[in-house]
Amino acid sequence: MEFSSKLLEKAVNEMSQLPGIGKRTALRLVLHLLRQPNDQTMQLASALQNMRNEIKFCKSCHNISDTQLCEICANPHRTSDIICVVEDVRDVMAIENTSSFRGLYHVLGGKISPMDGVGPNDLNITSLVDKVKQGEIKELIFALSSTMEGDTTNFYIFKQIQDCDIVTSTIARGISVGNELEYTDEVTLGRSIMNRIPFESSLKS
Amino acid sequence: MEFSSKLLEKAVNEMSQLPGIGKRTALRLVLHLLRQPNDQTMQLASALQNMRNEIKFCKSCHNISDTQLCEICANPHRTSDIICVVEDVRDVMAIENTSSFRGLYHVLGGKISPMDGVGPNDLNITSLVDKVKQGEIKELIFALSSTMEGDTTNFYIFKQIQDCDIVTSTIARGISVGNELEYTDEVTLGRSIMNRIPFESSLKS
Repeated sequence: MEFSSKLLEKAVNEMSQLPGIGKRTALRLVLHLLRQPNDQTMQLASALQNMRNEIKFCKSCHNISDTQLCEICANPHRTSDIICVVEDVRDVMAIENTSSFRGLYHVLGGKISPMDGVGPNDLNITSLVDKVKQGEIKELIFALSSTMEGDTTNFYIFKQIQDCDIVTSTIARGISVGNELEYTDEVTLGRSIMNRIPFESSLKS
Repeated sequence: MEFSSKLLEKAVNEMSQLPGIGKRTALRLVLHLLRQPNDQTMQLASALQNMRNEIKFCKSCHNISDTQLCEICANPHRTSDIICVVEDVRDVMAIENTSSFRGLYHVLGGKISPMDGVGPNDLNITSLVDKVKQGEIKELIFALSSTMEGDTTNFYIFKQIQDCDIVTSTIARGISVGNELEYTDEVTLGRSIMNRIPFESSLKS
């Protein structure tokens, strides 16, 4: 792609570093900014700079936060002895949106994946194990992706805290609400039969 | 969507102002930037700021440029009496990539579209008509989209310069190279038969 301006080229190149944004999309976005008032570009640029420079990670759960301790960890109305282990900040937001969990979170920052060069030491596992070993946690809920990497990470953490007096659970895997049985994959369907629940308890939710 | 950080929320909101980027995609992009070194965000932000503040539009053809006169207009090896009229900067890049045109361009900055509130006065039409009336242009090639708005714009400009001693042409419309006849839409196929060309001249390209 030949650009008539070095400034344009630089902006497009930087924009196309973002995941899922190719050169053509980057050009479309940048030309859109050029057509908009000057302010919009300046606000976007400063929002990104401020975020990158000033954002903090909660020292307890590693969630993104503006303060040392995030709003969830600092909330006295939440049950502090149940911890939900998630991969990513987005998972915290997704679970929070369901309003079904009132405990605290622990954000690992990824999952163990040797193929991508991510080992246990690249994740926030030590701080979780320390938290559990202090003995104030009653239950640990594993809410990681239902993939091989997710299962590996679950198992790795489980091994570390096996000897502690703590209940561990994992979120239910089964067919999605609203899904037809016919189109559900075999593994999910098989697991959903093995892990069936009493009919009475399904009436509650 | 509930955010755990105001800084994150601001960045996501600004990012999602871009066309085709929703809140979820914006969050993915912003979290990606957070995982990358600080530098990448700073370079993206400053590239956008520099571009918006310093970019110029060529005073002759209105193409994006770093200088008063763009590289194409300033190039003495280009035929300056043939002008290709295009909507957008991207069209200049697309035609330049084909290496089939050695004249100059004129970027209108859009097309007449009453539905979107774009009238002739919002486009760079006056400067084009002035250029033609100075009498130094031999041919005007209309290379606008083959849509109703494109055709309207072509016709509007044509009406303004009708009395000038100038050749006007429009780029050929027909079936795309490599396309099967069977899947070509009726209008295109009909036009391609009406505007058929001598077989000998098709051998040249």
